[in-house]
Amino acid sequence: VTDTDAARRLAYIALGLLVEPGNRALGLLVRKLGPVEALRWTRSGNAPPDLAAAIVPRLAKVDPFYLAETAVTRAERLGARILTPDDDEWPDQWDDLAQISRDVPDVIDRDTFPPLCVWARGPLALGRACDQAVSVVGSRASTDYGNSVATELAYGVAEQGWTVVSGGAFGIDAAAHRGALAADGRTVAVFACGIDRWYPQANGALFDRIAESGLLVSEWPPGSDPHRRRFLIRNRVIAASSRGTVMVEASVRSGARFTLNRAGELDRAQMVVPGPVTSAMSVGCHEALREENTILVAAADQVIEAVGRIGADLAAPRRVEPTARDQLTPLQAQVLEGVRPRKLLSAEQIAAAAGVSERQARRVLPGLERLAFVTESGGAYRLRRLSDGNRRFR
Amino acid sequence: VTDTDAARRLAYIALGLLVEPGNRALGLLVRKLGPVEALRWTRSGNAPPDLAAAIVPRLAKVDPFYLAETAVTRAERLGARILTPDDDEWPDQWDDLAQISRDVPDVIDRDTFPPLCVWARGPLALGRACDQAVSVVGSRASTDYGNSVATELAYGVAEQGWTVVSGGAFGIDAAAHRGALAADGRTVAVFACGIDRWYPQANGALFDRIAESGLLVSEWPPGSDPHRRRFLIRNRVIAASSRGTVMVEASVRSGARFTLNRAGELDRAQMVVPGPVTSAMSVGCHEALREENTILVAAADQVIEAVGRIGADLAAPRRVEPTARDQLTPLQAQVLEGVRPRKLLSAEQIAAAAGVSERQARRVLPGLERLAFVTESGGAYRLRRLSDGNRRFR
Repeated sequence: VTDTDAARRLAYIALGLLVEPGNRALGLLVRKLGPVEALRWTRSGNAPPDLAAAIVPRLAKVDPFYLAETAVTRAERLGARILTPDDDEWPDQWDDLAQISRDVPDVIDRDTFPPLCVWARGPLALGRACDQAVSVVGSRASTDYGNSVATELAYGVAEQGWTVVSGGAFGIDAAAHRGALAADGRTVAVFACGIDRWYPQANGALFDRIAESGLLVSEWPPGSDPHRRRFLIRNRVIAASSRGTVMVEASVRSGARFTLNRAGELDRAQMVVPGPVTSAMSVGCHEALREENTILVAAADQVIEAVGRIGADLAAPRRVEPTARDQLTPLQAQVLEGVRPRKLLSAEQIAAAAGVSERQARRVLPGLERLAFVTESGGAYRLRRLSDGNRRFR
Repeated sequence: VTDTDAARRLAYIALGLLVEPGNRALGLLVRKLGPVEALRWTRSGNAPPDLAAAIVPRLAKVDPFYLAETAVTRAERLGARILTPDDDEWPDQWDDLAQISRDVPDVIDRDTFPPLCVWARGPLALGRACDQAVSVVGSRASTDYGNSVATELAYGVAEQGWTVVSGGAFGIDAAAHRGALAADGRTVAVFACGIDRWYPQANGALFDRIAESGLLVSEWPPGSDPHRRRFLIRNRVIAASSRGTVMVEASVRSGARFTLNRAGELDRAQMVVPGPVTSAMSVGCHEALREENTILVAAADQVIEAVGRIGADLAAPRRVEPTARDQLTPLQAQVLEGVRPRKLLSAEQIAAAAGVSERQARRVLPGLERLAFVTESGGAYRLRRLSDGNRRFR
């Protein structure tokens, strides 16, 4: 029996409302059972303790489908929409988040699973906006130097057709959005509170402008308050939504460094803008630049070069990893179902056979090739045979 | 027949006066024949073209021993001394320069051989000063930011007992010397002109102070003018005299980057201070930081950590390289002569047997151990046996 699309959608939305985002136990459950069955199980009273503890208490007894339908109505009233992983607009690269979760007591490292649903407001299609995007992060208490560099960088990358992704805070976040807007470019603000909450209030006019031409996104339903843990959980989405993160100014212990590290874990470019060594607001940047794998960037073209290079690296042959089929994301596994062992099929044909959109197939197939599950030839794909050196994967 | 010490000394001095410093052809000749025979050969009319072209024309016909003796008298009159590789005060680490020369048409890459004699003025013993030293280089047209950072860094490393090495230029060079002097520390200025030439004139008072407590050093005899090529040739000495070079401010095409690269070729730490990305005087620094093997430093303790680490790295076991005896420096080869195959000897005993100073033996023995020529045990050394895995070296 296959769940209907409508049931899956409502289940995703209900789960997104019922459980604090990123939950590893729930993420694993959804991967195993699909959203409908996972929702049933979550509410059965048999949910594992990690999951049970993450359920929003006041919603524990509410009918989940009523909850989801109310949310859809509320979104419409706000001029927003709710996206789930089944939507064509969903950014498939968020899947990478599932692979960096660790089963450790630290809730922030454990709860890095991809969102199950997000609220979005603005004319941009989220997935397409994230295809070619750079995240810009930094301190709230930035200096004039940091603000002007963030604005310049964001202007420069947006002018070259790259989407800017950031949070909604004072300082570097706001400066980055302003730069992208000044270039008439695309910008996405990822909130740690409801998309109807202007936090901080003084950025309200900026959020209005982003909602008009870009996108406001949040995993939390309207009315949700921001708090410290939510910022940390939210940061993984900023890192996962782009090909690389630029940190402009950061004090020693800045949340921005957290986002930068997440980008690294996700195999995305970690870029840092230096500043005067006499400035406390650059100490975190310089510390990061003393670590491996960070790239110093001083101008927009260097940012684009770094994220472009990442793209090129991904396209190049990589060391074959011992990845088993059961480690694939649901979408990867689904696309793989559409690939034939001998006959080369186009991405369009594979998409049709697998029951996914052509865009999803195109996005996932290069990764399957890197993982040595498929072989590409003239833009078409077939399953890689055991004799291709693939033995240990089957 | 062994040349007397006095003859060797005069020959080194004469060669240092006769031929522009760094000459590869002459360096190879001296290694092969010793200074006395190399001098005879240089003046025989049979010198290779590279060497013949480097002879100072007006001195070609002068009696070289008259030349050398006149130089010694002149040095005494200036309150200076002339050092040659036989002096105990000679920095043995300059030997490393012979290994980075390349037989290519580019005269700057070819002529990197160690000095044959230097003029020195000031109370410091040169070799000992270089034992624990950091070079600080940067732009002449530095900003207030660069000057203050250079002074701070130099103050900090000098206060911790490290010698500061730099040139004599305006800007970063002068700021570094000032910092070291303010800390009552050791500082060494390496000139690209005679040590009696105050170039630039406005740094005269600073040079006087360095001559009182530190050291002025030059490969060029008194009265020599600075010119562009000499600065480039001189830079190798700044890089070779320390365990690492810090670049504080540099425009895109700065001589400081040349010195920094030389430090890297010599396997010494390459450190760079960042600055605002909006400053033209930091562009060269940021370019260097985008390259591999450079370390961002923001404070003196980070500089000391970097050069200290280099020392620790050197002490640790390294990959055994296929180095043959004939690739050793003359001093290495000479010290090796004093090591016995079976009996463990102290550095003092080896020095006596090899006819070198104990300090020279102590300096060279760890390197011979790294190159797998000797084995150390409880502070004493013996030749490494074939059965020690040394077969290919003999």
